[in-house]
Amino acid sequence: MKYKHIKKERVFKNEHFSVYEEDLILPNGNKVRWTFLKNYRTVGVIAFTPEGKLLMVKQYRPALEKEIIEIPAGLVDPGEDVEKAAMRELEEETGYKAGKMTKVCEYFRSPGVSASMMYIYHAENLVKTRQNLDEDEFLEVLEFDKKDIDELLKTPLDGKTIYALNYTKSYLIK
Amino acid sequence: MKYKHIKKERVFKNEHFSVYEEDLILPNGNKVRWTFLKNYRTVGVIAFTPEGKLLMVKQYRPALEKEIIEIPAGLVDPGEDVEKAAMRELEEETGYKAGKMTKVCEYFRSPGVSASMMYIYHAENLVKTRQNLDEDEFLEVLEFDKKDIDELLKTPLDGKTIYALNYTKSYLIK
Repeated sequence: MKYKHIKKERVFKNEHFSVYEEDLILPNGNKVRWTFLKNYRTVGVIAFTPEGKLLMVKQYRPALEKEIIEIPAGLVDPGEDVEKAAMRELEEETGYKAGKMTKVCEYFRSPGVSASMMYIYHAENLVKTRQNLDEDEFLEVLEFDKKDIDELLKTPLDGKTIYALNYTKSYLIK
Repeated sequence: MKYKHIKKERVFKNEHFSVYEEDLILPNGNKVRWTFLKNYRTVGVIAFTPEGKLLMVKQYRPALEKEIIEIPAGLVDPGEDVEKAAMRELEEETGYKAGKMTKVCEYFRSPGVSASMMYIYHAENLVKTRQNLDEDEFLEVLEFDKKDIDELLKTPLDGKTIYALNYTKSYLIK
């Protein structure tokens, strides 16, 4: 289908976000104004400790006004290699360095408003190092037995985590 | 962990988006300014035709500047019941009315920036009615054989669709 992109402008920007509006010509000839968000790349990591425990992080999410449990994750820095970012985020958040990192999947997080991508990795051959959080970052590392994943799936989760836990159930703990 | 929410203000608004900034006191006493997006509720629907074909929609996504294949989906209207929205979106986009709608999962789409939720439903007992798109909405309905889901999983997909296809593989087509 033929869409024509006409003119894009940034209508808002702060430290964390940019919002863009763009004029589009639709296949029926109608002109509409669309809104986009700046694109980000995010990594999430499925990782088991040498003792066979699944590493998760519990953190307060101001937008939810509560704590939820997630897989270790974070933003890829501008220009950073995605696999390196997965390595870095796992070590910063949990204090484990991975010897091997394999991409499990990648997907568009919200294709209606941005080209932001999520990359999910499976980390293997973990070695204990140390956690290295930013001064203003607070999270608690949790370790789950494989048998407790079904219980974890009944708690409030986010998209990357629900995907990762289902993937773990289907492919990693058979 | 103790976070204190201080003062929230809207810093941008257009027809599609609102951006908020809020002052927060962190557990270490530091004050930071956080950015939030307005919350939305989205439904996605896993549905097989009476002939056993998986219903998918192909549409141009301006943010990606290309077409991708997704499960039927859309926004829940303000005040609308989520299950009714799943029924409505399935019928509007594909021209099939479901006799039964079962929630498969729900998750936070992007907990770092909003409390927006995704609800994925499994629709059953489909009856052909007719597609009912908005004037400015363009999409192509595709029907996939169960055996083609693995091929579909190799194409560029979004989060709800990759979740839905994996769920379908694990639980609906055994």
